[in-house]
Amino acid sequence: MRHRRHIGKVYAGRHGIVGALTEDLIDVYRETRATIRGLKHTPAGAFGSARFKLQGLDKNRAEYERLIEVFRAHDIGYFFYNGGNDSMDTALKVSQLGESLGYPVTCIGVPKTVDNDLPHTDCCPGFGSVAKYVAVSTLEAGLDVASMARTSTKVFVLEVMGRHAGWIAAAGGLAGSKADEPPHIILFPEIPFEQQKFLDKVKQCVTDYGYCVVVVSEGAAYPDGRFLADAGTVDAFGHKQLGGVAPVVANMVREAHGYKHHWAVADYLQRAARHIASKVDVDQAYAVGKAAVELAVKGANAVMPIIVRKSSKPYRWAIGQVPLAEVANKEKKLPRDFITPDGFGITEPARRYLEPLIVGEAHPPYRNGIPAYVRITGVPVKRKLTTQFKL
Amino acid sequence: MRHRRHIGKVYAGRHGIVGALTEDLIDVYRETRATIRGLKHTPAGAFGSARFKLQGLDKNRAEYERLIEVFRAHDIGYFFYNGGNDSMDTALKVSQLGESLGYPVTCIGVPKTVDNDLPHTDCCPGFGSVAKYVAVSTLEAGLDVASMARTSTKVFVLEVMGRHAGWIAAAGGLAGSKADEPPHIILFPEIPFEQQKFLDKVKQCVTDYGYCVVVVSEGAAYPDGRFLADAGTVDAFGHKQLGGVAPVVANMVREAHGYKHHWAVADYLQRAARHIASKVDVDQAYAVGKAAVELAVKGANAVMPIIVRKSSKPYRWAIGQVPLAEVANKEKKLPRDFITPDGFGITEPARRYLEPLIVGEAHPPYRNGIPAYVRITGVPVKRKLTTQFKL
Repeated sequence: MRHRRHIGKVYAGRHGIVGALTEDLIDVYRETRATIRGLKHTPAGAFGSARFKLQGLDKNRAEYERLIEVFRAHDIGYFFYNGGNDSMDTALKVSQLGESLGYPVTCIGVPKTVDNDLPHTDCCPGFGSVAKYVAVSTLEAGLDVASMARTSTKVFVLEVMGRHAGWIAAAGGLAGSKADEPPHIILFPEIPFEQQKFLDKVKQCVTDYGYCVVVVSEGAAYPDGRFLADAGTVDAFGHKQLGGVAPVVANMVREAHGYKHHWAVADYLQRAARHIASKVDVDQAYAVGKAAVELAVKGANAVMPIIVRKSSKPYRWAIGQVPLAEVANKEKKLPRDFITPDGFGITEPARRYLEPLIVGEAHPPYRNGIPAYVRITGVPVKRKLTTQFKL
Repeated sequence: MRHRRHIGKVYAGRHGIVGALTEDLIDVYRETRATIRGLKHTPAGAFGSARFKLQGLDKNRAEYERLIEVFRAHDIGYFFYNGGNDSMDTALKVSQLGESLGYPVTCIGVPKTVDNDLPHTDCCPGFGSVAKYVAVSTLEAGLDVASMARTSTKVFVLEVMGRHAGWIAAAGGLAGSKADEPPHIILFPEIPFEQQKFLDKVKQCVTDYGYCVVVVSEGAAYPDGRFLADAGTVDAFGHKQLGGVAPVVANMVREAHGYKHHWAVADYLQRAARHIASKVDVDQAYAVGKAAVELAVKGANAVMPIIVRKSSKPYRWAIGQVPLAEVANKEKKLPRDFITPDGFGITEPARRYLEPLIVGEAHPPYRNGIPAYVRITGVPVKRKLTTQFKL
């Protein structure tokens, strides 16, 4: 809105690219200033999210032609798309419209994924807050188990997100820094799961510390690549159960050692937990969005703003940029030297990397005991096309 | 410490009554003032908790004689015990020592249970904070699902604590107040689960609102009393799996309707989440503890301070008291008029009751991005007895 010379109106695709294809656009100017401001302290995708990946131009030319039809009808010259690997792939493909199909569109990707697996950027907005949630939850549940362990629960398993990369699981490691402090064991997707080694370590923890707290990534897998979560579990009727990995690990411990256990699966709670957001993360999310607009009006195209770490202690960062082609469909995994040699913990380099990302609180305002999150009214932009598009 | 005339020293039983029986006492005076103050913003039982219930005097006289032995050795004249139904039963039994075995001890119970199921008191310290956690988590995850539903997850199931009473599940209802706002369905232990009725309601929500958020109590059960969580699930080796109720409900929905689902099990996270504590709850927890000491030095015995609601809007409360005999082993369930006629939601009377309990924030101090929770040093009181006690 501060760049009226270049950008006259701001539309949001309802459910991202799906809204762009179906000409379902939201007129952002029709939202109140209070709502727009409130988005900074509101979790989830206010304009709607989508699990939808554009195919290659050669595979589905109709989708691209439709995008141009919608862009042309509404005089859309700038396209901003935020998300992770898949979204950067979509952004890259849209940026190629100009060259391939003769419609000029400036396209900027904006990093945003709790998975933290985009390359080149120091971190991805969203991650710092999930990391903080997981570190705090591990700390809190760890105190609970420590209190209970003498006569009750001895093992607690917390399942966190991260199907391919262990960034979120690693963040659980920030709950403690000494061997006797939770979490005692972290199970990463990057480290093939060895059952006996794990069970021995659980036993050692219970013997030495009285209890054992385990953080397990949903992507933890056996050496043959099979997910632990895919335990072949069936219900009373023989139907296959798609379960979490936490109950699988907890039952494994119970069967081997007989310890009383509890387990939790944070699932969406972790990535929607705006109430415990990291201030650094909120600041960075805002900064990359702002940089994206500035890059666009300066004439950049097919790039993504990134966070560049200048120093860790104190944490100093600046905004840089990379071509979308260098981030689309590329996945940054946890480096091996972030994981202890035994595969069950995080190292000092990991701490140096992770710690600054969860620093600072950004408490939302509260009303009647719950956060005063906003909802957009989502006034649709008047349709100009008579044609429909079927996804 | 402000009642030195009556109370010279303050000892804590390590792991509660277990520490009292085994003469494992912590000298609270050896903790720093900062640690003691820090307990107010630290979750879990700092002195250790226990799942241990004293038997009746007629069944295990040795335990009572042992208690007197320990009390006499350390000149213990006041006994404070906090917890829920079982703990009030223990407190009551200890209060009878004087009459039954000739050792004078002043015994005060202190209400503290997230289950919120002690009678006579307006609520139980601990509950307001769990209620706030569940309301906030439901709100946050609900926004996430709403964003995803168009092309992905349509049903989200959150499992919360409460094996016998639905207080915590009911708190999830505070996340929304209109029919289209999450949670759309709450499954209470007090309402026998009717599968078809539930599945129909899920379908109606997805049709009308695009998605459906379900809060389910761990104690949800079929009309025959069988827990939903006891689904007869077996793993690949045919071993019985003790699972949560959330995955059972989620799979039920998937099999009936094919909707993509996610589920979360909050488990210990909910009751240890000091970072999102209710200020009203923290104030009440402190108030009942203070009242307990004041009652004791005034010569009361075998009583429990309670919270008395004076008005709901605005919320006004005072401290009262009841005899322990009136609370021990008694369970307060959710009244039927707190649950909507269809059994899936909360009513206005429920909101009037619940809303004040989650009001106000009591953010803990943070250090390096995580709450600065304290741990006691737990200096043991020198043993005076040569005898051991085997639990």
